[in-house]
Amino acid sequence: MQSRGMTREQLLDAAGDLMIERDSLEISLMDIAVRAGVNAAMVKYYFGNKEGLLLALLERDARGTLNQLLRLMAMDLPPDEKLKRHLVGVMRVCFQRPYINRLVVAVLRDQPANRRQQVADLYIRPMTDFYARVAEDGAAAGLFRPVDPMMLYFQAVGICDNIVAARVILPTIFGIDALSADQREQYIEQTLAIFLAGVRAPDARS
Amino acid sequence: MQSRGMTREQLLDAAGDLMIERDSLEISLMDIAVRAGVNAAMVKYYFGNKEGLLLALLERDARGTLNQLLRLMAMDLPPDEKLKRHLVGVMRVCFQRPYINRLVVAVLRDQPANRRQQVADLYIRPMTDFYARVAEDGAAAGLFRPVDPMMLYFQAVGICDNIVAARVILPTIFGIDALSADQREQYIEQTLAIFLAGVRAPDARS
Repeated sequence: MQSRGMTREQLLDAAGDLMIERDSLEISLMDIAVRAGVNAAMVKYYFGNKEGLLLALLERDARGTLNQLLRLMAMDLPPDEKLKRHLVGVMRVCFQRPYINRLVVAVLRDQPANRRQQVADLYIRPMTDFYARVAEDGAAAGLFRPVDPMMLYFQAVGICDNIVAARVILPTIFGIDALSADQREQYIEQTLAIFLAGVRAPDARS
Repeated sequence: MQSRGMTREQLLDAAGDLMIERDSLEISLMDIAVRAGVNAAMVKYYFGNKEGLLLALLERDARGTLNQLLRLMAMDLPPDEKLKRHLVGVMRVCFQRPYINRLVVAVLRDQPANRRQQVADLYIRPMTDFYARVAEDGAAAGLFRPVDPMMLYFQAVGICDNIVAARVILPTIFGIDALSADQREQYIEQTLAIFLAGVRAPDARS
């Protein structure tokens, strides 16, 4: 007999696994229950409905990343080093949970209007605050060119995420099912090289 | 009485408009027919099913961009200028049709396996060929650092597209419904500045 927490975790694992396999967030509650090996009524019991399950999955997946981000913001490091470490973290999360940014967008979009702000403040604000801080500190230190931090946030997430968001392209065009471990590291390196050189002030040393 | 072509175009316009308004590709055929003011049977008549309609929408939306890309490739311009013009074009398409990259992914993912390669070759290969060529020419000219062109393709599309893919974030976090015309231009400028400086060879003149 399983504990309550275990069944809940199994359902979240099953949901995440199916989203990765099918490259879609459109997974039925029944499919999730079957994959988790539990009764479909359990999904309703734990999460209420599909929206509740997606929100719980986001909460589980974002927790570690957000804690890491708060620690990074508090560290005594130059802004370019903070940005670099943050981007590496974002890409590692994307490789592990390729649905994560699509999930953020879907959860936010599908929230009732009166809960949307709360969800945004919990799961997105820490990220956008980080970009505001790092862009300001970087420019003040003469390390970064002046940039709009809102736009920098979207640019950073996009350059990190698209290789997983559009991974369906890999087999047909590039003849590979997925990036190998080496290719993932190479993607991280190339993204860091482009993005950090891209935000660097023209006269800052590299 | 309308011509056949007109009804077909109206249905595609309605589908695109609803995807923009709802920030989703999950639009029912009935909703599309209602919006277009035509009988729902017309959707089946012209497109067969939802997948057929999405493919037709992609075909319509991608046509201009792909023709532009072929012209750009044939022009006698330095690789950095070609890359710049291409990125501007990608961003303008994203602002006009914010669902476009999600549509590419969904159409490719939902194709039957025996048609997937053809769709990829038609709608994605011209883009990835462009990146292969421009990365090679740019490195040969000493303008770009050596980069993996497959990764460059994903990075470029991601940095251009994410501000429309994740636009649901704009109202809750940034207090704006959408980017203004000026902000769109600023986004284009900032993306060009970051991406072009990012791929530039360290010793190339800017």
